[in-house]
Amino acid sequence: MAHAPHSRIKVGIVGGTGYTGVELLRLLSQHPHVELTAITSRKEDGLPVADMYPNLRGHVSLAFTTPEKANLVDCDVVFFATPHGVAMAQAQELLAAGTRIIDLAADFRLQDIATFERWYKMPHSCPDILAESTYGLVELNREAVANARVIGNPGCYPTTVLLGLAPLIENGAKLVDTQTLIADCKSGVSGAGRKAEVSTLFSEASDNFKAYGVAGHRHHPEITEQLEKLAGGKVGLTFVPHLVPMIRGMFSTLYARIRPEAMDTDFQALYEKRYADEAFVDVMPAGSLPETRSVRASNTLRIAVQRPDNGDLLIVLVIQDNLVKGASGQAVQNMNLMFGLPESAGLDQVAILP
Amino acid sequence: MAHAPHSRIKVGIVGGTGYTGVELLRLLSQHPHVELTAITSRKEDGLPVADMYPNLRGHVSLAFTTPEKANLVDCDVVFFATPHGVAMAQAQELLAAGTRIIDLAADFRLQDIATFERWYKMPHSCPDILAESTYGLVELNREAVANARVIGNPGCYPTTVLLGLAPLIENGAKLVDTQTLIADCKSGVSGAGRKAEVSTLFSEASDNFKAYGVAGHRHHPEITEQLEKLAGGKVGLTFVPHLVPMIRGMFSTLYARIRPEAMDTDFQALYEKRYADEAFVDVMPAGSLPETRSVRASNTLRIAVQRPDNGDLLIVLVIQDNLVKGASGQAVQNMNLMFGLPESAGLDQVAILP
Amino acid sequence: MAHAPHSRIKVGIVGGTGYTGVELLRLLSQHPHVELTAITSRKEDGLPVADMYPNLRGHVSLAFTTPEKANLVDCDVVFFATPHGVAMAQAQELLAAGTRIIDLAADFRLQDIATFERWYKMPHSCPDILAESTYGLVELNREAVANARVIGNPGCYPTTVLLGLAPLIENGAKLVDTQTLIADCKSGVSGAGRKAEVSTLFSEASDNFKAYGVAGHRHHPEITEQLEKLAGGKVGLTFVPHLVPMIRGMFSTLYARIRPEAMDTDFQALYEKRYADEAFVDVMPAGSLPETRSVRASNTLRIAVQRPDNGDLLIVLVIQDNLVKGASGQAVQNMNLMFGLPESAGLDQVAILP
Amino acid sequence: MAHAPHSRIKVGIVGGTGYTGVELLRLLSQHPHVELTAITSRKEDGLPVADMYPNLRGHVSLAFTTPEKANLVDCDVVFFATPHGVAMAQAQELLAAGTRIIDLAADFRLQDIATFERWYKMPHSCPDILAESTYGLVELNREAVANARVIGNPGCYPTTVLLGLAPLIENGAKLVDTQTLIADCKSGVSGAGRKAEVSTLFSEASDNFKAYGVAGHRHHPEITEQLEKLAGGKVGLTFVPHLVPMIRGMFSTLYARIRPEAMDTDFQALYEKRYADEAFVDVMPAGSLPETRSVRASNTLRIAVQRPDNGDLLIVLVIQDNLVKGASGQAVQNMNLMFGLPESAGLDQVAILP
Repeated sequence: MAHAPHSRIKVGIVGGTGYTGVELLRLLSQHPHVELTAITSRKEDGLPVADMYPNLRGHVSLAFTTPEKANLVDCDVVFFATPHGVAMAQAQELLAAGTRIIDLAADFRLQDIATFERWYKMPHSCPDILAESTYGLVELNREAVANARVIGNPGCYPTTVLLGLAPLIENGAKLVDTQTLIADCKSGVSGAGRKAEVSTLFSEASDNFKAYGVAGHRHHPEITEQLEKLAGGKVGLTFVPHLVPMIRGMFSTLYARIRPEAMDTDFQALYEKRYADEAFVDVMPAGSLPETRSVRASNTLRIAVQRPDNGDLLIVLVIQDNLVKGASGQAVQNMNLMFGLPESAGLDQVAILP
Repeated sequence: MAHAPHSRIKVGIVGGTGYTGVELLRLLSQHPHVELTAITSRKEDGLPVADMYPNLRGHVSLAFTTPEKANLVDCDVVFFATPHGVAMAQAQELLAAGTRIIDLAADFRLQDIATFERWYKMPHSCPDILAESTYGLVELNREAVANARVIGNPGCYPTTVLLGLAPLIENGAKLVDTQTLIADCKSGVSGAGRKAEVSTLFSEASDNFKAYGVAGHRHHPEITEQLEKLAGGKVGLTFVPHLVPMIRGMFSTLYARIRPEAMDTDFQALYEKRYADEAFVDVMPAGSLPETRSVRASNTLRIAVQRPDNGDLLIVLVIQDNLVKGASGQAVQNMNLMFGLPESAGLDQVAILP
Repeated sequence: MAHAPHSRIKVGIVGGTGYTGVELLRLLSQHPHVELTAITSRKEDGLPVADMYPNLRGHVSLAFTTPEKANLVDCDVVFFATPHGVAMAQAQELLAAGTRIIDLAADFRLQDIATFERWYKMPHSCPDILAESTYGLVELNREAVANARVIGNPGCYPTTVLLGLAPLIENGAKLVDTQTLIADCKSGVSGAGRKAEVSTLFSEASDNFKAYGVAGHRHHPEITEQLEKLAGGKVGLTFVPHLVPMIRGMFSTLYARIRPEAMDTDFQALYEKRYADEAFVDVMPAGSLPETRSVRASNTLRIAVQRPDNGDLLIVLVIQDNLVKGASGQAVQNMNLMFGLPESAGLDQVAILP
Repeated sequence: MAHAPHSRIKVGIVGGTGYTGVELLRLLSQHPHVELTAITSRKEDGLPVADMYPNLRGHVSLAFTTPEKANLVDCDVVFFATPHGVAMAQAQELLAAGTRIIDLAADFRLQDIATFERWYKMPHSCPDILAESTYGLVELNREAVANARVIGNPGCYPTTVLLGLAPLIENGAKLVDTQTLIADCKSGVSGAGRKAEVSTLFSEASDNFKAYGVAGHRHHPEITEQLEKLAGGKVGLTFVPHLVPMIRGMFSTLYARIRPEAMDTDFQALYEKRYADEAFVDVMPAGSLPETRSVRASNTLRIAVQRPDNGDLLIVLVIQDNLVKGASGQAVQNMNLMFGLPESAGLDQVAILP
């Protein structure tokens, strides 16, 4: 499956007007092995991308175009930075042409179709493609991603919760009570996207903190499905998302009760070993406390493990940039793996601080 | 025209779902001489106001209603916190019933109808009422406001620029060159209102600074019309508005060339004397530099006068809370005057700092 | 103990240069039954208060003075808005003169002296006064507060956690497991005070989210001591504070496991009944989600009760303005009660939104 | 003067604990032609840089060291990201060893020693080195920079004002009145550095806007000296800096009166032509309005030219990231030129938006 050396991957982006779209453009426009061939938006057909996103002036000369004119079947891979439901409508045709797909929406995240349809209020139009698709969390599914034709790129919250809890429950580990997990998560406002909505106006979201989706959030079943796959059985997780007055960044505070027989575990060592070879997961030294700005605009996800008073409650603190490791950076990481490129190609930016 | 003692003014608000609406409710719900009788919004008919604005829980028990059900003609005064064009459509009927009007939109700000129609893209439907209306900047028009039936409440930018420049040009003063005035103004985001728009999303407006409306802004002709009235002749003003990543607050940096014959003027003394009796205009001591948070949520407007190196350029720095003195507080100040109440009734809040 | 009608309480403030100090000044300068007689700061002796806090221009004419010149023993009550350790050094003298004390620092919060000395790294200099002092959380200790000479004003975090959990554990209630309580708390930056420190610079704290004090925070033993008093036995609480890039506001997400025998409890009704008569505790309707801005600059604390899927985990969401109900407003509430005034005198401000 | 191909420049940084220091590290750690050999801080000797700046974890393995241990004379170039006065104390020794110097403080910005000493309150210890030093604004001094041994890296404000006004006055151009120039400038808070000061605390600077330094700012004489060099004569400039509640970004609104004989000038074309070959100056299309986020974390400076109503006032809007083109990026740009490297080596990052 490795990509031919010396040539560049032809990449198309469908629906590039949102924040995951502009972030893909930022990353891909400087990727050493990528040739951006098309970016589509029916509504903005003809508009130079840099007119909408002035940070791209001088870096991206493409204009938005329609899917038809884009001739996406000539691409090696197409990213969907679209509303839910768009990727599955075009998947068949692209796959038939040998074009691979990385969907940043939810079409290929949930393997359980009933769950998908309940949470996303639409029928799933290609169950067969869903069945072959891969959940694109490289650190859990590296082998499958490398061989995938279709990637469901994980949601932002699931990325933090899954990587934060995986070492505790995967491969038969019985270190914590899997029925009383709690994920108290906090997200920057860009996670809500670039839609014009009152609730994410500056004057509404600034100098304010709130919870939302406590009664139910689409990322909850996504997390649960993957956790159960890891744990090999039912998992009980309480998930409470909150909105933080910052543009980028996600912080998940995870609580897990240590099982009596696992009280002697060296959790710090466990995490360090688990992620020792991962380029984008940084287990911080014992006693550390992460802050979101330390990963702003980078693809790094940081984990700190805390166990107050050496008691029976483990606290795992996980941070990422929701638009990078939580979305577009992870999508590029998937692409790299799918095309036999170095996993960190185009993803080695240092985070912006301050 | 004084209001009968011991009774409360019956007040209605049309279109209270925006920021000037909620700010009116905050101020009027604690005003000692006001009885809030109705607040209208066709779209939100039946919704308790406090459900939309949780800060009002326990303070305002009204629900939104329709204009028809509101029976506004029974009010002593009606505030219009509506889009432009709404007040003029209802003015005739209200006035006929003896109800006074304070319009926070632009229907009664510009006396020149052609100018109004050019900038607001609509015909003016009641030129006669416009002719009798008063520009509600109390510090410049106290007498007229006290006797007014219809008030055009000033725009936020005009309030700062007019009060900042008035002492230099009013009453025949020839202290500065009136053809080269510059107003470099900066506004918090709430000035753009509560409309769902991409440009004022948190993720767009936060951690960002920009100019806008440089080629033309509706407040420009409003300022010019009033300045020319004060100066008794043509005035040349350059007006550059900017957007600041803060919710409330406006800061205007005004530049005026001192005329050669006025170089000996004590401008600090001039301003102090001019506003000595004003409850809501605070001329700061010489050498001061104002900051917007010092007036956050209060009706005070602060002015500092600077003249670097005692040269020929006078710099006047003016701050206000755009939603209070720049909008709803000023409207209440107008109401107080119209009904013979103490001018600062219900407006004596201390600003919130930090 | 009621204060003589028609006269005003003479109030002094020690150490008014911090945020709790300016907030006391904002509230007390408009309190109908208070006469501010002195505010002390050795360092700023002679400086008009309004020069440091320009929001007070026109509202407070006092200048800072030294404790000696302030003649605090003539006050009816003295607020200490000082570093820890100051109030206890002056308490004896003031009490002897009949002056009551409300300490906003920690000198009279912890009844257990060993705990105090471990966490605050100083000996307690007046154990006898500590023994007679009252923990000033009115909603839990109304009777004692009314009769107190010395109040330890609660910390900001404890206020939210205690009022959020009290209905579940007080008076012998056995509704939740008291050994596995979790408080995931988020505070605005003003909670860190006005000290010049790198970690709370704008460029460090803005657009950022972090946890801190996970290994131990001074408010933890304070919360635990009070919880154990309520529960009548040992309590196990995990407390994780986080820093939110907003000036004011505190949001506590509390997690409690419902005991099997309490699964049928109507928790919404429980909370509504518990706080039905409280002026400053607002239990929101079922299904509500609070946001901190709804209490900005007001003394209201809001609670929402959530129980996802009607399961065994109760989530209690609590918000307050950390400088008002979490500090200075609560102190004034205590004063009102101590002097027989209406509990909400001077505390009826509507929150500022947006 | 070109650097030997295939080898890397050895770079030292003195005083890397401030924001310009961490920004240098971000840029230099990914520079293809640089080997970072030492970063000094007496106070933090031994501390790994990444412990202070967690964004550098995994990218910079250096620890802070003392100047003595750093052996800076072995470097090809040393950056001083220090307080004023440090670079001039070490310059002699470094130059003697053949090490070049780029000072990000003010030691080599002002050619007039009396002016330096008046504004920076210290004697200048090496007037001869100052005399040979070059003002490192590449777009104005490319030739001199390429041959320089000592660079005074421009202040942030001067960079925007000088590049914004240069086309109007350089090379004998007489397009505007040079006696009435106005620069109304707005800066993000990181421009104040990482010192622990009350005025730049989050709780002070957030949700606030203010002017400062109106009576005099150190960048004023720096701008004037360079403007006069360009114009070949006296220049009168009013400079008003303001503080914006954002971390990074600078926005300068420049006002210039067009001379009667220059009224027919096509200013848009003038600017486009002047900067056509500059990699880091982007003249936006006519009618554009820049926003600071479009250059966040990039070395691009953007200019928009506005002339309202085709009148006699020219408005030039200039933006940059104050820490990149306004400081560390510009310093790297200077280094590139001094060592014969491509001017944009290590500086081609796309700005971060949102």
